[in-house]
Amino acid sequence: MSLLIRSTYVSHLTLYQPRNSKSSSFTNQISFFSSFNHNPFVNLVYKRNPTIMQSVSPSSSSKMAVKSSLIDPDGGELVELIVPESDIAAKKAESETMPKVKLTKIDLEWVHVISEGWASPLKGFMREDEYLQSLHFNSLRLQNGTFVNMSLPIVLAIDDDTKQQIGSSQNVALVSPQGDIIGSLRSVEIYKHNKEERIARTWGTTSPGLPYVEEYITPSGNWLIGGDLEVFEPIKYNDGLDHYRLSPKQLRKEFDNRQADAVFAFQLRNPVHNGHALLMNDTRKRLLDMGYKNPILLLHPLGGFTKADDVPLDVRMEQHSKVLEDGVLDPETTIVSIFPSPMHYAGPTEVQWHAKARINAGANFYIVGRDPAGMGHPTEKRDLYDPDHGKKVLSMAPGLEKLNILPFRVAAYDTVEKKMAFFDPSRAKEFLFISGTKMRTYARTGENPPDGFMCPSGWNVLVKYYESLQESEESSKQQAVVSA
Amino acid sequence: MSLLIRSTYVSHLTLYQPRNSKSSSFTNQISFFSSFNHNPFVNLVYKRNPTIMQSVSPSSSSKMAVKSSLIDPDGGELVELIVPESDIAAKKAESETMPKVKLTKIDLEWVHVISEGWASPLKGFMREDEYLQSLHFNSLRLQNGTFVNMSLPIVLAIDDDTKQQIGSSQNVALVSPQGDIIGSLRSVEIYKHNKEERIARTWGTTSPGLPYVEEYITPSGNWLIGGDLEVFEPIKYNDGLDHYRLSPKQLRKEFDNRQADAVFAFQLRNPVHNGHALLMNDTRKRLLDMGYKNPILLLHPLGGFTKADDVPLDVRMEQHSKVLEDGVLDPETTIVSIFPSPMHYAGPTEVQWHAKARINAGANFYIVGRDPAGMGHPTEKRDLYDPDHGKKVLSMAPGLEKLNILPFRVAAYDTVEKKMAFFDPSRAKEFLFISGTKMRTYARTGENPPDGFMCPSGWNVLVKYYESLQESEESSKQQAVVSA
Repeated sequence: MSLLIRSTYVSHLTLYQPRNSKSSSFTNQISFFSSFNHNPFVNLVYKRNPTIMQSVSPSSSSKMAVKSSLIDPDGGELVELIVPESDIAAKKAESETMPKVKLTKIDLEWVHVISEGWASPLKGFMREDEYLQSLHFNSLRLQNGTFVNMSLPIVLAIDDDTKQQIGSSQNVALVSPQGDIIGSLRSVEIYKHNKEERIARTWGTTSPGLPYVEEYITPSGNWLIGGDLEVFEPIKYNDGLDHYRLSPKQLRKEFDNRQADAVFAFQLRNPVHNGHALLMNDTRKRLLDMGYKNPILLLHPLGGFTKADDVPLDVRMEQHSKVLEDGVLDPETTIVSIFPSPMHYAGPTEVQWHAKARINAGANFYIVGRDPAGMGHPTEKRDLYDPDHGKKVLSMAPGLEKLNILPFRVAAYDTVEKKMAFFDPSRAKEFLFISGTKMRTYARTGENPPDGFMCPSGWNVLVKYYESLQESEESSKQQAVVSA
Repeated sequence: MSLLIRSTYVSHLTLYQPRNSKSSSFTNQISFFSSFNHNPFVNLVYKRNPTIMQSVSPSSSSKMAVKSSLIDPDGGELVELIVPESDIAAKKAESETMPKVKLTKIDLEWVHVISEGWASPLKGFMREDEYLQSLHFNSLRLQNGTFVNMSLPIVLAIDDDTKQQIGSSQNVALVSPQGDIIGSLRSVEIYKHNKEERIARTWGTTSPGLPYVEEYITPSGNWLIGGDLEVFEPIKYNDGLDHYRLSPKQLRKEFDNRQADAVFAFQLRNPVHNGHALLMNDTRKRLLDMGYKNPILLLHPLGGFTKADDVPLDVRMEQHSKVLEDGVLDPETTIVSIFPSPMHYAGPTEVQWHAKARINAGANFYIVGRDPAGMGHPTEKRDLYDPDHGKKVLSMAPGLEKLNILPFRVAAYDTVEKKMAFFDPSRAKEFLFISGTKMRTYARTGENPPDGFMCPSGWNVLVKYYESLQESEESSKQQAVVSA
């Protein structure tokens, strides 16, 4: 049980118990294949080892309907805000007559997040009551008096002109960055966007240089508009990665397909090295020791906005794919999918969002590392957040009581065993810590990291990416010289 | 019922019902007199109209013990951290051997607050778990899984030297600004004082010019020390106002003495004008209309740190005393007492603290005004907080469900009726709004406010104060000229 941390304040809480696999319903492989057969990690399981489906003794293999007994989504029901096929034409026609709100790229990521229910029970961009609760309490009170976690304000900013155009209209149409009407916001409420207060309460600093603030909040309008969201169809990016973007509903279906009796989520925005893999494999082992029969790993890279020096999503997905192909992680018990949220780099406040959204996707275990969602202070030589605050805040957060928090064990390169291993303080000198910065430096300079740090095919993906970066930098330098 | 606001999220909550006055226990007037006979407003009731005690039909006037059926304090039991008489000598001797922590004036105000149970169930300066919950969630989770409100971090800062002197000691002695050991902090925990994060999350800004920050946080040490508080005796200030400083326990006793079946609290840090009085008298009337038999007003001026241009406590207390002497407020149904907390000017965050502390003192109704605990933005030409956010946040705050929030009705000077009256938008032009700044300008320049704005004897107190201010300013100017 050393795997678990829980605040002493929640001593009344017990672990989510493994469900009785006998009572779990068997699910429909065929319909699943037809829906998601472009995600190689979903396919891999069935192609490479279809016996997994039999290995957990399904009790009712004749049933065709998908029925989940996974952890309940927040609010009891998974929110889905996609207009039924039959209504689309009428809704589209109606939206043409509404005042228009133009979305930024990041706004659209939030539309994606809300419409698929990652933020359940939130049904649209926040109205002021929800915004204030999020900002002050990191949670929303439901009608039954209980709380769900909601640590980040999920809001839509508009400028003075747009506010004026909306006037007293009840509903507005949402226009994608490409110019298409993608849905609407109904029964809207417009209220002041106090950027300073929002930033201070979300990040615990108003220092210049916060990536999300500079990219998105500072240039945004002075008003926020909340309301009930509807989208005409699921949000797609057409970047060759949409097949990785499983919605919470699709993930839940997949966990049921695999007869998962525990789902442990790993949020990341970096390449997977063998230390991560060690931790994930070790977690599965511990869950098996605890009595779970088939714990499934949700390897869940963040796919929305990230800061400029993070490794881009497409490169990360290729790297993750190599890690699974090489068998560093077991494709049979791993689902790789993209979490569509943009990144705030808001440390203890954001890690709650990361965990809460995974409850909605069916995860009942959440792995939390040192300084989750953290970064260096933008203007001072220190971490922006105390590296331990993330897991402490997470373990005490209102609305996350049903989630089991798994603290990250520190892994480092064991120079004697020549592999990534859990750090052993009794022989500290034999361990080498390779930070993200150090890893990027290796890849950029073409230097190889120590053997066993990452699978070679995964490493190659990074090396190629940094080579291409350097080439394009050199080419733009040459162009600058030519045009000077 | 228009008197009450409640978030739609808490629709399951019902009003605190008037208790059955027949079942309430009668209380001991004699012992009360002997304890508190220096508070003129407590005395006034008994001296001027002792019949009030009979007017609510006490059913068991022979009982001598005080037994409260007022609203429960947070956590179920009122915290009191004053060492029993018999243990004082031993505890004092023990404290001499402990490392010493020197308190500032504001630290001592917090010791006062904590030791009397205003912050119940908090039993000392916050340890890190409590600090993080307060900062992120404005609430603390109890062992039974419920929440109590706790919006301000109540923390004690120490510097590097003090931290080093404490070393691994478990307990520290607390030394007053005058150099006396006044108590101890036990089972201490020392953790980092990230001032920037504390300020940003508490005030929603890190702008220079926040009074509490400049006075107290900026000059304070880089560490916070939490632990269990003990004080050797009740905190006294020897400023001629200690008789006004009733503890929550003493206030509860007094409410019981008066057979209160509702207690409505009015927090203020300004002189009472006739608009305030109108509101308070109207509130009592509404509570009577609702079926309460004897609603008692707790007029509860804040007595700790305030900013330099606020009217000082002694002047305010004299002004309040005139208001009651003049009968603008009814001394029979009013208790005037000092709330010992320092002022943060932290708007929606602080108003929760103001309300929560009054629950502990027995109040089940709390009057909230426009922009409570607000101030002008220190560097921008606007209110620091949205004037409506205070009451919105208060109505949704975790842990305050049992408190009934009474919104302030706007009162202004009716130039036709020549008195303070509730603002009537249909004849807006006939109303004159007199802000605190305007009022201070009147008093400073010796100009009289319109008739009926404030009782003349109360107004005189202010005029004299501003005259004395001007005299001392002129005298120091003259001294500056002489010494130049």
